Amino acid sequence: MIEKDKIPKLSIKNLQSIEDLSVQDIENIIDTAKLFKYSNKEQNKKIPILSGRTIINLFFEPSTRTLISFEIAAKRLGADIINMNIESSSLRKGETLIDTADTLNSMNPDLVIVRHSISGSINEISSRIKCPIISAGEGTVEHPTQALLDAFTIQDKGKNFKDIVVSICGDIEHSRVARSNYYLLKKMGAKVRFVTPEYFKPKNIENFDVEYFDNLEKGIDSADIVMMLRIQKERIANTDLPSTDEYYKSFGLTYKKLTRAKDDVLVMHPGPINRNVEIESALADDLNKSVINEQVENGVSVRMACLAMMVK
Amino acid sequence: MIEKDKIPKLSIKNLQSIEDLSVQDIENIIDTAKLFKYSNKEQNKKIPILSGRTIINLFFEPSTRTLISFEIAAKRLGADIINMNIESSSLRKGETLIDTADTLNSMNPDLVIVRHSISGSINEISSRIKCPIISAGEGTVEHPTQALLDAFTIQDKGKNFKDIVVSICGDIEHSRVARSNYYLLKKMGAKVRFVTPEYFKPKNIENFDVEYFDNLEKGIDSADIVMMLRIQKERIANTDLPSTDEYYKSFGLTYKKLTRAKDDVLVMHPGPINRNVEIESALADDLNKSVINEQVENGVSVRMACLAMMVK
Amino acid sequence: MIEKDKIPKLSIKNLQSIEDLSVQDIENIIDTAKLFKYSNKEQNKKIPILSGRTIINLFFEPSTRTLISFEIAAKRLGADIINMNIESSSLRKGETLIDTADTLNSMNPDLVIVRHSISGSINEISSRIKCPIISAGEGTVEHPTQALLDAFTIQDKGKNFKDIVVSICGDIEHSRVARSNYYLLKKMGAKVRFVTPEYFKPKNIENFDVEYFDNLEKGIDSADIVMMLRIQKERIANTDLPSTDEYYKSFGLTYKKLTRAKDDVLVMHPGPINRNVEIESALADDLNKSVINEQVENGVSVRMACLAMMVK
Repeated sequence: MIEKDKIPKLSIKNLQSIEDLSVQDIENIIDTAKLFKYSNKEQNKKIPILSGRTIINLFFEPSTRTLISFEIAAKRLGADIINMNIESSSLRKGETLIDTADTLNSMNPDLVIVRHSISGSINEISSRIKCPIISAGEGTVEHPTQALLDAFTIQDKGKNFKDIVVSICGDIEHSRVARSNYYLLKKMGAKVRFVTPEYFKPKNIENFDVEYFDNLEKGIDSADIVMMLRIQKERIANTDLPSTDEYYKSFGLTYKKLTRAKDDVLVMHPGPINRNVEIESALADDLNKSVINEQVENGVSVRMACLAMMVK
Repeated sequence: MIEKDKIPKLSIKNLQSIEDLSVQDIENIIDTAKLFKYSNKEQNKKIPILSGRTIINLFFEPSTRTLISFEIAAKRLGADIINMNIESSSLRKGETLIDTADTLNSMNPDLVIVRHSISGSINEISSRIKCPIISAGEGTVEHPTQALLDAFTIQDKGKNFKDIVVSICGDIEHSRVARSNYYLLKKMGAKVRFVTPEYFKPKNIENFDVEYFDNLEKGIDSADIVMMLRIQKERIANTDLPSTDEYYKSFGLTYKKLTRAKDDVLVMHPGPINRNVEIESALADDLNKSVINEQVENGVSVRMACLAMMVK
Repeated sequence: MIEKDKIPKLSIKNLQSIEDLSVQDIENIIDTAKLFKYSNKEQNKKIPILSGRTIINLFFEPSTRTLISFEIAAKRLGADIINMNIESSSLRKGETLIDTADTLNSMNPDLVIVRHSISGSINEISSRIKCPIISAGEGTVEHPTQALLDAFTIQDKGKNFKDIVVSICGDIEHSRVARSNYYLLKKMGAKVRFVTPEYFKPKNIENFDVEYFDNLEKGIDSADIVMMLRIQKERIANTDLPSTDEYYKSFGLTYKKLTRAKDDVLVMHPGPINRNVEIESALADDLNKSVINEQVENGVSVRMACLAMMVK
């Protein structure tokens, strides 16, 4: 039986950035997620330690997976969860972000999960809300629970952060997933590579303590983890960037290219994948290499851990 | 008190087609639904035998009635239910049906309810999902829970399948409701008629063991049940089919035409009705003839029965 | 511990109009809301006296705040709540309001909350539904729970209805909030003023027992409560009415104009506010004057009270 009192607390109030977390926090989240991973395989998945609490899913940017992952997490913990999508929101009438925050705050929630496409918006919201906040993805800034579920997956597959090389590959410039993973992996002692064509290279790459590669095969050479990023196909289509076919040829992960990595390499992807754009379709489905489905599964457990550790 | 252990199991894992069900399955579903029909009239409607389970309502085709019917059914059984509509889904970003299935499967649901406008799509989804699946309507293939709730309604009104003539009337060619009802009624021993204008006659009518009529009055002559189908008004409007007025004159069910049926005939309709297109408005509301509202009520009970019998 | 049996009952079945309520009803609602205001500040906010009941949020007109306020209220009382928005509804297929009502009625709900932009529509729905109904806003008719939460807020801030002057200011002609507040405040013995430019003056103003002012400063002179209404900016933009800037100059509430009111005046607004259109932005946020956030907070408690008092 998992008891609320025995679950460790997070050292910070809001989970907006991996940078704010201590190594101990990260280890506590992973350890707690492990407990929920077991209970999530039971017929009765309910661990009602947040019974009577109100959690709000405030999504200004649509996302099936992430919204549902948090919704399931909250419900399995026994909390009441309210989904609030911008489409059905009164922001259409000109209401400001601050007014939305004030309104929600007045309803005495115990935790608010926020996803927003604009960098900086979550600070604006959290400045008005008394309860803890979790970022479920913010502009190109961070997506902390994605990095935490990736870390849980890596450790759960028997890897030791201090011993591994992680190649983060693709459109790093626009990726909040890459940023959150970078901060987490460095904090835990892993070696990180950024593998990206010149046009997706972060403008401030000198601020990151990484090895940089503009060639996928070289970039994943002897890597323990190959973490592919989602390509915004719209973004490619509307610019003078290469076609998705050309992109796939140079930067799509294939079985052939993957032979350069370690034999026991793990292939990761935050989803949803573009088959045969950033990753070969069959490879994404190959359970000997790809842990994409486990990432999704672990996402629910990690989010349960965050909720359980953050709600007072 | 209804106990989970005493509820019979379905002989099959997935409820996609009435064809897969045994007569015993159908009788068990109806008997179980009867219990829930009583509890649904109580102030406290909760029979929490699915407490701690996760059920997903995956609707790629919108439907108020059916979605809400399953949602209420799941909640009254104490399950956590997650509604997932295509509009807010990442399928907009080009995610495939298979990826959606993989994602949901990884969240360890206990049952997934799927509605999709494309025939064959549910097979595609069920091939990737480990837990039981219920079709809530698939293309022009089947809509099994509609047929089950219709069967429950027929039996609940004191009819014996072996003794009755059921006239299914209207746009049979495009109707999954007609197909599911046909399979169920034949399995239970009823006589089935297809009553439909030439342009709505199923192309493969020779595969159905029915009497065929292209005239409504003759088709419902001495019938015990007249089951009207919903007309897609858009479909009529955009073709060289007759106007809705002309359609109503020939194939709309009126009090006058209904005199040809048995005195104790039951008028059924899966809803939502087009008043004065396929059925006279006052007749749809006439509780001495129409059991349309009871069909809706029984729908919740039948869906509770299916969930209770199918979730492990 | 709050017990269902000890909660007073409402003297009427449906809450559509404040006019139908007795003074005793209003006092009972406020007294009951007070209890929930305490429980809503606890970690465990659950008072599961409506466990096993089914409540439906039937919103034909979108509204974040009101929908969520009722959803949280129902969940904290332990009820199952189903959200039904017109956008995802089969009304798109031509289903009538009456058919929707019949469908919902057949699902045996214990209470239905309805919001609709057309005056008269709630009567149409309630005529077909057996269980109690709460209006969550109807055309330009009434918005009873808004007036009740405003009354709770006024009393909770120590005001005595019999001693106060309440100035309702802005677009009164189109405001259901103004109408509900007028009926409630008069019933409780307050003095009510309508303060509105000529073009927003109700056509039948002679039916209201109010003092009328077409000048904001004069209209709030010595007032105890200044209740600002939301301006539909679209409405202003599309007519020969003054611009929002001009409107703000004459009818926007500012610190300067507010000096005319009593020193301990309360500023109220049903939200969402248009900053610097009907109210100075800083004034809306000034917790020494504005009780806007408390109105939202009290809204959840008042709705819990209504649900608890109305569900059988």
